[in-house]
Amino acid sequence: MAIEALKWDGEVLWLIDQRRLPLEETWLKLGSYEEIGTAIGDLVVRGAPAIGVSAAFAMVLAARSDASTEGLQRAAGQLRQVRPTAVNLAWAIDRVSQRILQLPQEERVAAAEVEAEAIRNEDRAACAAMARHGADLFEPGSRVQILTHCNAGALATAGIGTAVGVVRELHARGCLERLWAGETRPILQGARLTAWEAMQDGLPVTLMADTASGKLFSTDCLDAVVVGADRIAADGGVANKVGTYNLAVLADRHNVPMYVAAPTSTVDLNLSRGSSIPIEQRSADEVTEIGGQRIAPLGVEVFNPAFDITPAELISAIITENGVARPPFEESLRSLCRKA
Amino acid sequence: MAIEALKWDGEVLWLIDQRRLPLEETWLKLGSYEEIGTAIGDLVVRGAPAIGVSAAFAMVLAARSDASTEGLQRAAGQLRQVRPTAVNLAWAIDRVSQRILQLPQEERVAAAEVEAEAIRNEDRAACAAMARHGADLFEPGSRVQILTHCNAGALATAGIGTAVGVVRELHARGCLERLWAGETRPILQGARLTAWEAMQDGLPVTLMADTASGKLFSTDCLDAVVVGADRIAADGGVANKVGTYNLAVLADRHNVPMYVAAPTSTVDLNLSRGSSIPIEQRSADEVTEIGGQRIAPLGVEVFNPAFDITPAELISAIITENGVARPPFEESLRSLCRKA
Repeated sequence: MAIEALKWDGEVLWLIDQRRLPLEETWLKLGSYEEIGTAIGDLVVRGAPAIGVSAAFAMVLAARSDASTEGLQRAAGQLRQVRPTAVNLAWAIDRVSQRILQLPQEERVAAAEVEAEAIRNEDRAACAAMARHGADLFEPGSRVQILTHCNAGALATAGIGTAVGVVRELHARGCLERLWAGETRPILQGARLTAWEAMQDGLPVTLMADTASGKLFSTDCLDAVVVGADRIAADGGVANKVGTYNLAVLADRHNVPMYVAAPTSTVDLNLSRGSSIPIEQRSADEVTEIGGQRIAPLGVEVFNPAFDITPAELISAIITENGVARPPFEESLRSLCRKA
Repeated sequence: MAIEALKWDGEVLWLIDQRRLPLEETWLKLGSYEEIGTAIGDLVVRGAPAIGVSAAFAMVLAARSDASTEGLQRAAGQLRQVRPTAVNLAWAIDRVSQRILQLPQEERVAAAEVEAEAIRNEDRAACAAMARHGADLFEPGSRVQILTHCNAGALATAGIGTAVGVVRELHARGCLERLWAGETRPILQGARLTAWEAMQDGLPVTLMADTASGKLFSTDCLDAVVVGADRIAADGGVANKVGTYNLAVLADRHNVPMYVAAPTSTVDLNLSRGSSIPIEQRSADEVTEIGGQRIAPLGVEVFNPAFDITPAELISAIITENGVARPPFEESLRSLCRKA
């Protein structure tokens, strides 16, 4: 069983505090929607699916404290603000709201809990399905070495993860020789989260600076790169954590397959091309400080894009819960999304 | 005038403490060869040329305290140990020793100083020549954007630097639009040293995490990558700070020239191919800790190669003090080395 980022015990939501990992494993007990909202805003929990599931349980607690339509709408509005760009946050809040607002007030708490648990269970099932479809891409009985980037793991979802879910399934099948994790500057999700969750679950993992990936490719040991995605355009272009494109270009040169594992909810069929996905610039401090410690000259200009775009022609396959899309992605992705 | 990493005042050697940059500019006054040896070993000064020049002045101080053949040989032996893999260290010590051991004891101190100053002045001149040859590769009157990696700057030499020397010359000619510096994990020489020395000298510099380089290439703003080298094989394959190969692969995909600036002393004609250059693995702590602060799980396995190899086919030109070598490098490099 994989570690879990969040636990609902019927009364409160428990979240592992991801800001303190890997040095401390602290669980926070959140008994109100306001507390969950603050925790999402403060990055106690991150990863689009995990944020969505947390917000769904926040709506259960909101209904429990005030199940009136006015009260629920106020809570939904407040929660939506805490990370305005996170698509899954608004999506989960809206889904619970729409389900319960049509019911009499006295039925709303129970219905909210049913809906939140459904969202969690669907995410778990999607992770498990992606893991199977992804692992099926490799020869049965082989021993493979996989490079991943950032954290597309259990800590980012309610299940076993997207990219790391595929790796877990390979491990369960006895096919995983090694998982290589790039540390993923500036936020170090690879070092802090992926390495930690892999070790928790007994996966053979090796950590490295992002600069070492070229050298690793040169050793010809890699069987695939498997990463998650923040957003996928209709043409198969992928926005993911900055540094993903660097790995895709290296994989192309070394004839290593580049796989993206993401649920169909990540696919935005309204965006025709990956290159039109807007890229958020984040604060300079993320680059100039590590844990409050300054590592660069005061006042230096900083380029800090949160994501980059990997164009479709560098992607070998996109692994979804409904199956694997192959190029040309315009058709294959649309067909898998229709199944959703 | 560029900042300087070391100053000889006729009595003692002054070294800027590079371990404390960019937060503090501390100069250490070193009055004995033992102190200089310790400073080299403790990484107060780094960069092959700067280490060589520091060691040469250490031999002046050794001669001043004991100019006997036995005393000088003992000092030379001790100094050689402090960073046994640094080629320039042994080279500079041997050059001063050979020059003075043939002289009567009373002439040795003065001759050592002449030789050490010659080594320093030759390094300065080589930097200046590389800078001119490198800047000549760009259209006069153009405004260029250059990406560099690690620190191949004034802090690594006795002059204006190798790769950063080229950038300084472009700036002096009014041709530099922007220098982009990758932070260069794990040791962060880009963030700590290159960004600092560029700002000291008024160069327009932007710092970024190494992961952001792919995104930067995607914006099509770069005119060249210019890096230094730790060792160059006869075929033109280059060992340089880990992460250099990643940039070379990106540069190739984006049709951006990949230039290497290094003195001919870096070329090892006895090594036929870049791929045969041995790569040092360094300690896991460099990846798992930053400034003593842990950023990864205890006990995680780490891959930490200090360098990588960029094969000759990815290098557009090698800039030396004797001119610019173009592919095929077997002939062009040999010819430039013959001039040395």
